Amino acid sequence: MTTATETPKSPSPATGDELREQVRAAAGRARVAAVELALATRRHKDDALHAMADALRSRVAEVLAANEEDLATGRAAGLSDALLDRLALTEKRVAGVADGLLTVADLADPVSEVLRGGVLSNGLELRQVRVPLGVVGIVYEARPNVTVDAAGLALKSGNAVLLRGSSSAERSNEALVAVLRDALAASGLPRDTVQLLPCHDRASVRHLITARGLVDLVIPRGGAGLIAAVVEQATVPTIETGVGNCHVYVDAAADLDQALRIVLNSKTRRPSVCNAAETLLVHADVAEEFVPRVVGEFRTAGVTVHGDERVLALAGGAGVVPATEADWDTEYLSLDIAVGVVDSLDEAIGHIAAHGSGHTEAIVTSDVRAARQFTARVDAAAVVVNASTAFTDGGEFGMGAEIGISTQKLHARGPMGLAELTSSKWVVWGDGHIRAES
Amino acid sequence: MTTATETPKSPSPATGDELREQVRAAAGRARVAAVELALATRRHKDDALHAMADALRSRVAEVLAANEEDLATGRAAGLSDALLDRLALTEKRVAGVADGLLTVADLADPVSEVLRGGVLSNGLELRQVRVPLGVVGIVYEARPNVTVDAAGLALKSGNAVLLRGSSSAERSNEALVAVLRDALAASGLPRDTVQLLPCHDRASVRHLITARGLVDLVIPRGGAGLIAAVVEQATVPTIETGVGNCHVYVDAAADLDQALRIVLNSKTRRPSVCNAAETLLVHADVAEEFVPRVVGEFRTAGVTVHGDERVLALAGGAGVVPATEADWDTEYLSLDIAVGVVDSLDEAIGHIAAHGSGHTEAIVTSDVRAARQFTARVDAAAVVVNASTAFTDGGEFGMGAEIGISTQKLHARGPMGLAELTSSKWVVWGDGHIRAES
Repeated sequence: MTTATETPKSPSPATGDELREQVRAAAGRARVAAVELALATRRHKDDALHAMADALRSRVAEVLAANEEDLATGRAAGLSDALLDRLALTEKRVAGVADGLLTVADLADPVSEVLRGGVLSNGLELRQVRVPLGVVGIVYEARPNVTVDAAGLALKSGNAVLLRGSSSAERSNEALVAVLRDALAASGLPRDTVQLLPCHDRASVRHLITARGLVDLVIPRGGAGLIAAVVEQATVPTIETGVGNCHVYVDAAADLDQALRIVLNSKTRRPSVCNAAETLLVHADVAEEFVPRVVGEFRTAGVTVHGDERVLALAGGAGVVPATEADWDTEYLSLDIAVGVVDSLDEAIGHIAAHGSGHTEAIVTSDVRAARQFTARVDAAAVVVNASTAFTDGGEFGMGAEIGISTQKLHARGPMGLAELTSSKWVVWGDGHIRAES
Repeated sequence: MTTATETPKSPSPATGDELREQVRAAAGRARVAAVELALATRRHKDDALHAMADALRSRVAEVLAANEEDLATGRAAGLSDALLDRLALTEKRVAGVADGLLTVADLADPVSEVLRGGVLSNGLELRQVRVPLGVVGIVYEARPNVTVDAAGLALKSGNAVLLRGSSSAERSNEALVAVLRDALAASGLPRDTVQLLPCHDRASVRHLITARGLVDLVIPRGGAGLIAAVVEQATVPTIETGVGNCHVYVDAAADLDQALRIVLNSKTRRPSVCNAAETLLVHADVAEEFVPRVVGEFRTAGVTVHGDERVLALAGGAGVVPATEADWDTEYLSLDIAVGVVDSLDEAIGHIAAHGSGHTEAIVTSDVRAARQFTARVDAAAVVVNASTAFTDGGEFGMGAEIGISTQKLHARGPMGLAELTSSKWVVWGDGHIRAES
């Protein structure tokens, strides 16, 4: 109970059991919404996406005011400038996420797509069609734009979504979800297509990821710790996303000017994202020429090089420190890179197998055989020849906004868009067919 | 230690730690084999499948002798006739599983199939291709034919397989695996494509399903208890298979002769398998005519009817007992069926949503609208119009031998063949492409 003089901004914190019931009740409402969404036509869903985008633009003041509250709370709590920047919304950023909804509206409806089909020799008609998963939970950190992206992708793929955002973005997420829910209702679709879960207690994550039978999939988006905790403790299906210990291998037959551009772009374009390169491997045949050049460029760009012995010998000095064993396994997410020299393509592939996280691995080479060996033998969500690792991204791959990048092998691998938010079912039509004894 | 006078048929039981190391060492060898298998050509894999089939035929005496040992042990242990029949191999049954390998050889190679692809506006060439999962574990009960089916599907899909069979089939499985491994080696593929895990201790299952990083997927095949234990305790990815509480709904607009044939075939063809019907729902409009007819046929076929009140009123008597609440959730796997009367299509769909296991659900109707509503709204691996539930089977669906029937929504749903044993990767070719700031 709150005292009469207080006007709490949040409801009083729920007890453990109350919180569990809150999460399960939300999941129950999501299931009801999902039944309706599974049958919604493309036209209906696209109209709702347009209504959501329009509402975000027309109610931007409300969203920005809520965001300002989060920013004030964050500044008072001493959040770093980087975190505050991730949290901050502007009219332009809100317009950007609204545009994202329109992009999703333009994508084909994945639901009811026929994946395989035909008529069996006995005359049975068989089709495997895409269907929504049902209820999808997303556990994510600061950025409020994820709230809108996830809602849009879920709606278009016919799923209801349970959003468990960061407490630092609570007001922003509440404002965004209020806008989206009103637009859904105005379009004649269930408000409970999009729901925000309580975010002040880690326990709400636990209740979400153990709601077996109510929740069909939970996708964690955030740091490695969050992802590991969700995947290990969940009893509902989960998809591991986003840990990217990505490599660029510069082959003996590389065009070194091209290699330099690709390595720098892979490392420095946005060091904090999962598709940034964390290790550079250079073939010994070109190391003498390439290592000093690339280290010089890294120095200029403010990148600290963690070099092996040969790198230190070729290009020691300012901005270069000795690599430890741990460096080969580190996802820096910062202006750091591990650099090593290898004696062969095989050694590079072996190093990547031992240390890679299965996200994105690139080779720079002019040698067709080396490129084909690399793409065939490296086991990762994306293997790239003569291009930056930064392209592994749902938007770049033409999926519209992405809901995460899967680094696991089952169900989805790489950027996850609409298709990855679906399951399938077999639809069989007969005319009194019965099966003979075998 | 065994005494000098004993000649143990099995190695002495391993201690807990030894067993763990045995399982993990086998998984490590499987990983090495998987690297080679992923690159094997279709020709090479198909030649090996033919060699395996030939070897099973030429060494059938050895297999049957081993099987006779298992049967003798089983008879001494008092196994039921049904279980002994499941365990028994004959020359004909061995020839049948050998033929299964040839069927798999005839199927297209799933590996390297291009699933999606194109050229992005920036000129990047993008292809999503199928790749093997890597190491697949199968935990299964009595039938030794699963040993061969699983080995064949794994090989063709480029995976190494770890087989954890039943101790009651130990000698048979050992003999079959010895034959398969010799044929693999003679074909120039790794023996460790197929390995048998120790089967005397439940702990070997636990070590298999917790070998994170070594094992890419475990598929449990067997009773509901085995499946639930594996899925709940696993830390490696698993796929739930095979629990089938399947329904047949006879609509108001059904052709009742056709309905009778379909219901009887769905229930009685092979009551012990997961695609057998366990509940019959009859629309009230046709109940007066249909219920007495179908109950009469069930009586003749030796099927016990667990009827609701209206069924008891329409067709009580011998072979009909009152249904309890639990009956609607029971997978009998026997000559029993729950029978209820519903007042509408909606009620039937609601009943199936509440009690179905997501395996196979059938409607019998001549009404297009009812059929379309049923297929759109029922959420199951297979939804069937005017045909028996017995068709949900990898062989019937043209997949060759199946490795199980998934009743979950992620990765695979329904019969699992070669494609379902694969993952994918994105292969990206560029010419020095770097990504612009966004």
